[in-house]
Amino acid sequence: MNKFNSIVVFVSFLILGCSQDQEGKLSSHPSLSLSVSEAQEVVSNLEKYPLLKSSYQDLREAADLAIVSDMEVPLPGEAGGYAHERHKQNYRDMKNAGYLYTFTGDTAYAHFVKNMLDEYAVLYPTLGPHPLSAKQKPGRLFHQVLNESVWLLNTAQAYDCVYDWLSPEDRQKYEDKIFDPMVELFSVQYAEAFDQIHNHGMWATASVGMIGLAMGNDEYVNRAIFGTENNGTGGFLAQVEHLFSPDGYYMEGAYYVRYAIRPLLFFAEALERNRPFVKIYEFKDQIIKKAFYSMVQMTNPNGEFFPINDASVSMNILAPGVMYGTSVILDRYGFDKNLLGLAKIQGEVYPNGAGLKLAKAFAQEVEVMEPSWSSIEFVDGDDGTHGGFGILRTGEGKDQTVLAMKYGGHGLGHGHFDKLQFMFYDQGEDVVTDYGYARWVNIETKYGGRYLPENNSYAKQTVAHNTLVVDGISQNGGNRKAADKVHANRHFFDGSDSEVQVMSATSDDHYKGMSMQRTMFLIKDQRLDYPVVVDIYRVESDKQHQYDMPIHYKGYIMNTNFDYKTDKQVQKPLGRSNGYEHIWKTAEATVTSDAMVTWLDGHRYYSYITDVSTKSKILFGMTGANDPKFNLRNEPVLITRTSGKDMVFASVLEPHGYYSLAGEKSVAVHPTIQELRVVGHNSEASIIEVTGEQGLYWTIMINNAEADADAEHTVEFSGMEYSWKGNYKVIRN
Amino acid sequence: MNKFNSIVVFVSFLILGCSQDQEGKLSSHPSLSLSVSEAQEVVSNLEKYPLLKSSYQDLREAADLAIVSDMEVPLPGEAGGYAHERHKQNYRDMKNAGYLYTFTGDTAYAHFVKNMLDEYAVLYPTLGPHPLSAKQKPGRLFHQVLNESVWLLNTAQAYDCVYDWLSPEDRQKYEDKIFDPMVELFSVQYAEAFDQIHNHGMWATASVGMIGLAMGNDEYVNRAIFGTENNGTGGFLAQVEHLFSPDGYYMEGAYYVRYAIRPLLFFAEALERNRPFVKIYEFKDQIIKKAFYSMVQMTNPNGEFFPINDASVSMNILAPGVMYGTSVILDRYGFDKNLLGLAKIQGEVYPNGAGLKLAKAFAQEVEVMEPSWSSIEFVDGDDGTHGGFGILRTGEGKDQTVLAMKYGGHGLGHGHFDKLQFMFYDQGEDVVTDYGYARWVNIETKYGGRYLPENNSYAKQTVAHNTLVVDGISQNGGNRKAADKVHANRHFFDGSDSEVQVMSATSDDHYKGMSMQRTMFLIKDQRLDYPVVVDIYRVESDKQHQYDMPIHYKGYIMNTNFDYKTDKQVQKPLGRSNGYEHIWKTAEATVTSDAMVTWLDGHRYYSYITDVSTKSKILFGMTGANDPKFNLRNEPVLITRTSGKDMVFASVLEPHGYYSLAGEKSVAVHPTIQELRVVGHNSEASIIEVTGEQGLYWTIMINNAEADADAEHTVEFSGMEYSWKGNYKVIRN
Repeated sequence: MNKFNSIVVFVSFLILGCSQDQEGKLSSHPSLSLSVSEAQEVVSNLEKYPLLKSSYQDLREAADLAIVSDMEVPLPGEAGGYAHERHKQNYRDMKNAGYLYTFTGDTAYAHFVKNMLDEYAVLYPTLGPHPLSAKQKPGRLFHQVLNESVWLLNTAQAYDCVYDWLSPEDRQKYEDKIFDPMVELFSVQYAEAFDQIHNHGMWATASVGMIGLAMGNDEYVNRAIFGTENNGTGGFLAQVEHLFSPDGYYMEGAYYVRYAIRPLLFFAEALERNRPFVKIYEFKDQIIKKAFYSMVQMTNPNGEFFPINDASVSMNILAPGVMYGTSVILDRYGFDKNLLGLAKIQGEVYPNGAGLKLAKAFAQEVEVMEPSWSSIEFVDGDDGTHGGFGILRTGEGKDQTVLAMKYGGHGLGHGHFDKLQFMFYDQGEDVVTDYGYARWVNIETKYGGRYLPENNSYAKQTVAHNTLVVDGISQNGGNRKAADKVHANRHFFDGSDSEVQVMSATSDDHYKGMSMQRTMFLIKDQRLDYPVVVDIYRVESDKQHQYDMPIHYKGYIMNTNFDYKTDKQVQKPLGRSNGYEHIWKTAEATVTSDAMVTWLDGHRYYSYITDVSTKSKILFGMTGANDPKFNLRNEPVLITRTSGKDMVFASVLEPHGYYSLAGEKSVAVHPTIQELRVVGHNSEASIIEVTGEQGLYWTIMINNAEADADAEHTVEFSGMEYSWKGNYKVIRN
Repeated sequence: MNKFNSIVVFVSFLILGCSQDQEGKLSSHPSLSLSVSEAQEVVSNLEKYPLLKSSYQDLREAADLAIVSDMEVPLPGEAGGYAHERHKQNYRDMKNAGYLYTFTGDTAYAHFVKNMLDEYAVLYPTLGPHPLSAKQKPGRLFHQVLNESVWLLNTAQAYDCVYDWLSPEDRQKYEDKIFDPMVELFSVQYAEAFDQIHNHGMWATASVGMIGLAMGNDEYVNRAIFGTENNGTGGFLAQVEHLFSPDGYYMEGAYYVRYAIRPLLFFAEALERNRPFVKIYEFKDQIIKKAFYSMVQMTNPNGEFFPINDASVSMNILAPGVMYGTSVILDRYGFDKNLLGLAKIQGEVYPNGAGLKLAKAFAQEVEVMEPSWSSIEFVDGDDGTHGGFGILRTGEGKDQTVLAMKYGGHGLGHGHFDKLQFMFYDQGEDVVTDYGYARWVNIETKYGGRYLPENNSYAKQTVAHNTLVVDGISQNGGNRKAADKVHANRHFFDGSDSEVQVMSATSDDHYKGMSMQRTMFLIKDQRLDYPVVVDIYRVESDKQHQYDMPIHYKGYIMNTNFDYKTDKQVQKPLGRSNGYEHIWKTAEATVTSDAMVTWLDGHRYYSYITDVSTKSKILFGMTGANDPKFNLRNEPVLITRTSGKDMVFASVLEPHGYYSLAGEKSVAVHPTIQELRVVGHNSEASIIEVTGEQGLYWTIMINNAEADADAEHTVEFSGMEYSWKGNYKVIRN
C-alpha cells in the first residue's frame, strides 16, 4: 500500500466529518486539555486519591509562587541563558495559572496570564529573527523556532483557560500581536519545516492547531491537521502517519519520541475534545496507543530511555509528555497495570479528568509494582520494513535483566552509525551502554547548550557503540545521506522461552561488500548466578579486513586471563579519525586463545569472554582524547581487534558474584563460563560451543539462511552432524 | 602527667577491685553480650518495636539459612578467596546460631554450633602458619592473624551461648584443640603484636579476653586486660588509653576506628557484664563514650566516614562495630537524639537488652531525623597535644554542608602525608575529597585484596590530597618515620557563629625551613545560593619554592575564565615521583589574573576561584598513569602551580545554581564571587578581600600570631589600617 494511502482515505473521511459537524463546532473554554466540569470533579476528589492530591498541590504551589514573583519578559538571550530559561518559565507559569483559574475561579490567576500576555504583546512585535540561532531556524523569543512552538503550545492552553474571562479587545490584541505572527512564522515563513516529517514539524503543527482551537480559527486548525498544502502531505496527521512504524516505533529513538509525544498527545487530546469526528485515537489502527507503549518500553528498569541516536543517558519517563500520556492513554485506551507502574515511578498524574481516572485506579490497587515489560520486537520504518529494534527481558520490575539490539533505519539527522549495536542492563543500571549524545543541554557555557562538535566526531561514530567497526571506518563511511538510504534487517526473534531468548538481525548495506549477522541470546542456567548474554556476530566478506569489536563498559578492571601492557610515559589516541581519535589507548595485549576480562560495576562482577582462534589484540581505551574543551565524558572501552574475511565473533557476557566496598565483602570474582568455540559456520548455520565450570556445556545452533521457524537444518562440521528445527537451538548440558 | 599514669592508677584500683570480688565471679552463660533474661525480654517485646523486630528477623533468617545449608570447614585459602570468605561466614553463622539458641531454646541451633566446632577441632590442630601471608603475620585459618582474632571474638560469643548445653568433654575438646592454641598464637607467639598499641592489638587482646571470659579462664582475662607483662604496658586498657586522644579522636582515622571499635565495645561490654568492678565505661573519663561520638562525627551527612589515611571511601556507620555501639552507648551513657538518627540510617538495633532500649526510644520519637552534628574540633595524640581535626558544619541532617581539615599526627603505618588537607561535602556527597586507600579489599584477583603498590606510590603522597605540595615532594619526604615524629598544630577554631565559621592550623615540621598556616572559613551570605569555602593558605620560607595546590574534584569542567591547551597526540604524566607519576596531564594553562574553574557535580555547579597575582599555571590531571594493573580509580584533579617564598594562596569554592540532565534544566552556571585579593600578610596577620556580583564585598582579617580570642590587632597594608579583636574578623558588605 502506498504510504500516503491511509492519509488520503482519512482526509476524505474528515472532509465528510467536517461538513456534517460544521454548525455544531464546539466553542466552550477551556476545552484543550481541561474543562470546567472536569476541574470541578478533580477538586471534589482530591481527598480521595493521594496521587491526584499531591499532583494538584504541586501545580498549585507552582502557580502560587508564579503570581507573587516579579514578572519579567526579558529581551531574548542565548540558548540556556537567563532570558531563554525565563521565557520557558513564563509559559509554564501562564499554563499553571490558567489551570488554577479554572480550578479555583480566583481571578488573581487570570490577571497573571493577562498581565504577562500584555507584556508579550508589547515585546513580540518588536522582535526580528533571533541573532544567535547558529545553524537552527531562528525564532524571535528563542534562538530556534522549535522552542517558540513549545511556548505557543503551552500558552495556547493558558489562553484557552482565561479566554472567556478576557475582554474581546484583549483577545484581539494577543491574537494580532502574538499568536497570528507566530502562526505566520511557523507555517508560512517556515512552511517547509512545518510540512517536513520530523519532531520539529510535530511541534509546529500541534502548536498551530492548539492556538487555532483556542482562537476558534478553523483555517489554522485545518492547516495544522493537513499541512500547508491542505492535502495531508504535511501536517499533524502526516507526522503521526510517518514518524512511527506500524507498531509505534519512532525512528529517531526514545529520547526524541518523549519530546515528540508531548505535542502529539496534547493536540490529539484537544482534537478529540473539539473535533471528535476526527477519531484521532483510532487513526492508523490506534497508532497513538502503539507509539506510547513503544516509547515506554524503550526503557531500562529505572524508566530511563535507551540512549540510542542523539540522546541524553538520563532522560526518563518523568518527561512531561510521558507523564501526560500515562493519564491520557489510560483514559482513552483503558486500564493496564503497567500504566500504574509508570505512575508509581512518575509519582504524579495529570490534573484533569484522565489523571483523576488514573489516580483512582492507582488508589484501588492493593500494591502497585514497577512496570514489568515483556520481551518484544518493534519494526522500524513507516511501513515497518526497515528492520527493527529487539528487547529481551527476564525477571520482574526493578530486577529485570534487559538486552536490547538496534537494527532499524538511521534515524534522520539525529541518527548514529550504530546498526547491530547492543545495550545491556542489569542491577537496574546500564552495564554495557551507548554514550548517547555529546551535548550539555541548556548549559550556555557549553556551546550554548547545543550539540557539540564531538557529537559528530565521536558520539555518532560506530566505535562509540557496541558493534563491529570494519577497517577503523564508521558504517556508511559516516555519511548520513548514505545511511538514510539503507537499514538493517530483522532476521528472527523469539522471547517466548524465559530460559533461552534470542534475537537475530542482519546488515548488508553498512559496509561495502560485507554481510553481517548478529545473533544475541539471553540464557539462564542453574549453574549461573544471573542470565548471561551470548553474542554471535558473523561477517561474510571476500576481502581481508580489520575487525574491531568495542564493548563500552563501566567500572574497573578486576582481572584478565592474559597479560597486558600499559605505556608508562605517554598515552596516545587509538587512531586519527572515525571517533578513534577521541579514545586514549590505556593498555594493549596480544592474545592467541580465549580472552577473559572481568570488571566490577556496582555490586556485581562482569566477565566478558571472547573466542580467540587467531592472534588478536585486546585494546583498552578511555574516551577524552582530542577533546580541547573537556566536552566528552571519560568512559572506558574494551576493543577486541582481529582480521580476516569470513568470521564469527563469539562472546559471552556473564554477570557474577557480589561485591560491597562498604561491607568489604567479595563473592565469586571468577566467572563460571570459561571458553567458547566456533565449531563451524557457513551460509546455512553457525555452531558454537560454550563450556564452563560444574560441567557446563552448551551447544548453540543458529540458522544463517532465510528465517523460518519450521525449517529443518542439518549441517556437518569437523565430522560432527548437527540437526535442529527452526531458527536456533540451544542444548544446555 | 606521665602517659602511663592513668593506667597505673587504674591497675591499682583493679587489683583492689579484684580482691574484693574474687569469690563473687560471675559464671553464668551466656554473659558476653546477651543473657537469658535479656533474650526473653527481647522476644516478648518484638511486636512492640518495629526496629527490634526487623533486626531480630534478619538475625533469625540468617541463622535459619545457616543451619539448613551444607556445613563446610575448608582448608585455608588466599585472602578474599572462597575458603577465606567461608571461614568468615562460619563465625558469623556460629554466632547467629548461638544467639538463636539463646532466644528460642531450639537445640537445632546449638547442634549447629557444636557440629561446626567439632570440625574446627579436627582441622585446626593440623594447620601450620598460613603460607600466603605476604608481609602480614600469618594466622592458621587466615593469611593474617588479625582475621583469626575476629574469628575468635565471634566464636567466643557462640561458645558462650551454648556453653551450658555442651558436654564437659566437648568443651574440653574445643578449648584444647582450638581456643588454647589460638590464645597461645595471639599472646605468646605474637606477644609483641599483642602488646603493641595498634588496632591489631585491640583485636588480639579483646578476643583473648572474650574467650577467657567464656571459658572462665582468669589468666586469659587478665592477660587480655593488662598485657603479656601483666602490668598495663600492653593489653586492652593500654590500647584504650593510647589509641585515642583525650576527646576520643583515633589517630589512624575513621576507617580504622570503625574496625577497632568493634573489639573495644564487645570486650568492654563483656567486662561490664562479668567484671563490673572494672568500671570500664568510666575508664579515662569515659573515653569509650568519647571514642564512639568522635567516630560517628567523622562522617559526611550520609554516614560515610571521612576517608583520611588508608581508608575506603565507602565505609560507613553500617559497619558492625558502629551498629553495636549505637545500642550499647545509648544503654550505657543515656539517651541522645543523634543516636536515634544513627539508628535510622543503620536501620537496625543490636538484638540484646541495649538494642531493646534503643528500639523503644526510637518507637517513642514522633519523627526520627538523621543526625545533625555540630561543628567540632578534636585534638589528636594520646595526650591531646598533637594537633587535631576540625569539622565545620551548617544546615540540618542530610542537607548539611561540611568542611573538614586534618591537622593532627601521622596515623601510624596507615598514615598519609596529608597535613592541612581539607575535604568538602555538599548535596550529601563528597565534592572535594580524599582518594582514600589504593586497595580493592577482599578481591583476591587484586593482589589478594591487600594494599596495592599504588597505595604507597600514590594514595599516601601529598599530591593525592587537597593540600600544598612544595617542590613536587611529599611532606616529610614521604618518610613515615620522619612523619611519625612530628604533627601539625591547632591554631584557632570557632564554630559558634552559624554565618561565619572558621578553623586555622599550622604546620612547621612537614617541609624543611617552612612554616605553613591554613585558615578555612565556611561563610554564608544572602547573595549566595549556598555556603562557600574561603581558603587562606599562607607559607613562610626564606628560599624560593615551587608551590602546587591540588583540588581533587569530581564531575566535568563546564567553564573557565582562561584559555587552556590540551595535547591532542600524547598525554604524559605530571611528574616522575611523589605521586605525580600517577597523574596524566590532561590540559595546561598559564594565568596572570584570578583563575576560575567551574565544574558540574550532581545537580550543582562548583566554581573554584583562586587569587593569582604572579604568573601561574593551572594544570588539569586525571589519575591512572603508571598504573600497569588498572589498580587506580580515574579521577580528575586541578592543580594551581606557582613559585615564590612567602606567599598567601587565597581561594574560594562556591557551590551555585542547579542542573538536571534528565530535566534538561540549568540555572546559574556562573558564580557570584568574582575575585580575591590578598591585601597584605605578615607574621601578625593576613588581610584578604573577596568581591562579587550584587555588590558583594568581604574583608577577611586573620591573626597569624599566637592564637588569642581577646587580643587586639592593628595592621597596615597599602596605607589602609585594619583593626580587630580576636583571631579573625570577616566584614561582609
